[in-house]
Amino acid sequence: MTVHLVGAGPGDPELVTVKGLDRIRSCDVLVHDALVDPRLVAEAPADALIVDRKGRSQEDVTDLLVRYGALGLNVVRLKGGDPFVFGRGGEELLALEQAGIEVEVVPGLSSVAAVPGAAGIPITHRGLADRVTFATAHTEDGAEPDYDALVAAGGTLVLFMGLGRAAEIAEGLTSAGLAGSTPAAIVSRGTLPDQQTASGTLDELACLAVGLASPALIVVGDVAAFADAKALARVVATA
Amino acid sequence: MTVHLVGAGPGDPELVTVKGLDRIRSCDVLVHDALVDPRLVAEAPADALIVDRKGRSQEDVTDLLVRYGALGLNVVRLKGGDPFVFGRGGEELLALEQAGIEVEVVPGLSSVAAVPGAAGIPITHRGLADRVTFATAHTEDGAEPDYDALVAAGGTLVLFMGLGRAAEIAEGLTSAGLAGSTPAAIVSRGTLPDQQTASGTLDELACLAVGLASPALIVVGDVAAFADAKALARVVATA
Repeated sequence: MTVHLVGAGPGDPELVTVKGLDRIRSCDVLVHDALVDPRLVAEAPADALIVDRKGRSQEDVTDLLVRYGALGLNVVRLKGGDPFVFGRGGEELLALEQAGIEVEVVPGLSSVAAVPGAAGIPITHRGLADRVTFATAHTEDGAEPDYDALVAAGGTLVLFMGLGRAAEIAEGLTSAGLAGSTPAAIVSRGTLPDQQTASGTLDELACLAVGLASPALIVVGDVAAFADAKALARVVATA
Repeated sequence: MTVHLVGAGPGDPELVTVKGLDRIRSCDVLVHDALVDPRLVAEAPADALIVDRKGRSQEDVTDLLVRYGALGLNVVRLKGGDPFVFGRGGEELLALEQAGIEVEVVPGLSSVAAVPGAAGIPITHRGLADRVTFATAHTEDGAEPDYDALVAAGGTLVLFMGLGRAAEIAEGLTSAGLAGSTPAAIVSRGTLPDQQTASGTLDELACLAVGLASPALIVVGDVAAFADAKALARVVATA
């Protein structure tokens, strides 16, 4: 038996992979992130043990996976997005391998690409951006992101968990040399029925964030203009 | 009727999304990339018109989509990976919108995260990498990638289409200041049955590439050590 680290995708339950859904439908135990859509959780067999990770520490969750795996059960660890993109799946993988338990990784759609896409924003586009950097706006130790490095990267920037810090992010990026007129967009609750997009420029980022719900993702760079037809026309005309 | 820009995922046909498979199964016309698995193409209705884009220019393909869409047909444009991550989906979207044709984007698993994941490499990992930059090793105009910017970005680097240029990439990144001892891995034909991974250090990149088949993806950074247990132990011990 195996522990399957399965990505649930960015929100819309139909964006799970065929393989991921198959693993959910054949599990003995399902340990799921709180944000995973209940319709995906409901795809588990009626007699499966369902564990919501809400309120449990990462250490608790990892320990549960090791114990269920060691019992020879068919365990699915269902994580939002992709297990290995800002998902701490690597920690669970290491602990399971150290315990001698077989692991299968079933990747999922990370919100990093799927959420901008759902708002009509291609994160790369010929003539506008040939590279993209993903980062968290909340670093592990509570420090500011390395804005100099993010600006030096020079392509599209996609930032997670920045909704409540939009003003600081705009200030950090402009202080590091990015023009305040750079197109920016915030996509709230991407791929879900109540998805909302606000777009404008980096200087306007704090205002764009007003009234939007979590989770949200910030896109900074010329491609962000795809969220708005008139802004796009300006960017394409000058590219 | 609508043109659906659908991501087929990184290779394994079971890594298509449930929504993407649904769109394939209900299309009138399927225009697919040459690299898309034939088993996904075979999911189209028996009476659907199937068009392989192989040998057609991007302009031809876009023109076809506009013409079929204007006829009121239900068109699926099935692209490898994700339409909006190094997929030129933005160009097709723009042309269709300019022609007044309704477009639905169904994101797919980009190889950028799924392929390292399939080789056991999390592209972010607590204490090792809190950001990741994706870039092509072949830029649009044939110029070298901006190695200074890639190194300045400071997180995991994931490079596409670099298999035949591994020596130049290693040279470019070390000249830009990255240590030759930085862990590096090449994942060939990721998520497919003949997937192969070669791992070592940036200095060894040209040797790692020997004998590997396309398509392949290069991962540079501490997380690349996940491809090899002993290398990982060294990296985790010093993180």
